[in-house]
Amino acid sequence: MSEKTAAILAIGDELLSGRTRDANLHFLAGWLTERAVNLREARIVPDDFDAIAGALNALRAKYDYVFTSGGIGPTHDDITVDAIARALGVDVIVHPEAKRMIVDWYKARGEDVTDARLRMARTPDGAELIKNAASGAPGVRIGNIFVLAGVPRIFQTMLDAIEPEIEGGDRIFSKAVTVRNLPESTLAAQLLKIQTAENGVSIGSYPIDGDVKGVTIIVRSTDIGLIDRAIKSVCDEVASLGYEAVDGDHHG
Amino acid sequence: MSEKTAAILAIGDELLSGRTRDANLHFLAGWLTERAVNLREARIVPDDFDAIAGALNALRAKYDYVFTSGGIGPTHDDITVDAIARALGVDVIVHPEAKRMIVDWYKARGEDVTDARLRMARTPDGAELIKNAASGAPGVRIGNIFVLAGVPRIFQTMLDAIEPEIEGGDRIFSKAVTVRNLPESTLAAQLLKIQTAENGVSIGSYPIDGDVKGVTIIVRSTDIGLIDRAIKSVCDEVASLGYEAVDGDHHG
Repeated sequence: MSEKTAAILAIGDELLSGRTRDANLHFLAGWLTERAVNLREARIVPDDFDAIAGALNALRAKYDYVFTSGGIGPTHDDITVDAIARALGVDVIVHPEAKRMIVDWYKARGEDVTDARLRMARTPDGAELIKNAASGAPGVRIGNIFVLAGVPRIFQTMLDAIEPEIEGGDRIFSKAVTVRNLPESTLAAQLLKIQTAENGVSIGSYPIDGDVKGVTIIVRSTDIGLIDRAIKSVCDEVASLGYEAVDGDHHG
Repeated sequence: MSEKTAAILAIGDELLSGRTRDANLHFLAGWLTERAVNLREARIVPDDFDAIAGALNALRAKYDYVFTSGGIGPTHDDITVDAIARALGVDVIVHPEAKRMIVDWYKARGEDVTDARLRMARTPDGAELIKNAASGAPGVRIGNIFVLAGVPRIFQTMLDAIEPEIEGGDRIFSKAVTVRNLPESTLAAQLLKIQTAENGVSIGSYPIDGDVKGVTIIVRSTDIGLIDRAIKSVCDEVASLGYEAVDGDHHG
């Protein structure tokens, strides 16, 4: 099968201190799944040159696409562009088109074009720009790295802008069934048997913990026929235990 | 200063497919901050031997503590224990005390002790157990690695159990002020000036995006006196721009 892979590198002290709960990773995961790109790894690092550069170099060598979020604003603690340039061994330049976009954005709003705002026109040498419909200052693409803003609304508008550049692999389909009140350990041997018999599918078992107890079984494959066969086997095993499997995913 | 560092490795296909939004990372971040341990990195990897083992070996060499979450249940897709044993180059054994805990737990509830349930008594050779008050099957500590469950309620009860084993470093204090309606770019030059003058503090600037616009400034240090001085400088600069800084953190 043809596969496209990706990683996300979320950058920011606030994500690791407990102040802010990252929202971009989860959003990107769903967005990539819809586009048949397999998100294989996520990392979160602080606003630290070596941490950013080290993670970036590991990820860009390993996956088709790397998305970064955060650290591209106007303040002194926004060091993502500099860290990425260092990781790539290239200079940081003032990108003429980025500068024009920022000047136009603030002039149109009657606001001053300060040095801090122009800081957001700096990019690694050789980068292309990613349009930011939400707040003017662009994101950056260089090679297989997409450098996006950390503010979720801006992160998402930048994803809209790069969508045509993202190529998916073979589509992976999935189906889910949920069984209320069945502990996953009761079904474990049967799931192992089905997984062993069905090479072309991946079967995941997710306990539900909350007001409702039970388990959700998700079967994934590029082949819907194989999924249907495995789901039927799961439903048969569940029925033979005296429980009922219903369609759909209960997010436990 | 004396510092203790940590990383978290969250394990599970469902975290990278967009199905499940990880909750343990954010919880652990706050928990460690309260205990003066510096969470320096987070990674999320799928249920894959090489991905788990590779990430674990990178993290355990670099940080004082590594916490894993997920993949220690009774089903075939729970491979964390095996992957960690492989990373450490040790065997997987059936831990006698873990077996006893699981047998007792299910017997007390009148349930069968199946092979699947006993699968949760397997640990890397040389591991100690972490008590699980919520569902019986223990977590595992081996060296500086704490292997915890992925279900948030169980993850948290296991953190309770290991709390006495976690040693913090020097306490890092923080204070925050929020300025409504002030774009962070307007304050950027002043923040840079204060950060440059104040070596012993770390100043973070976080734009607020939502119904309320503005910026939150957070100053962190081991020295409260230095924090107060930097916060006063920030408030003075904000006032000279004609805005008002109020105490507290607006989570933007």
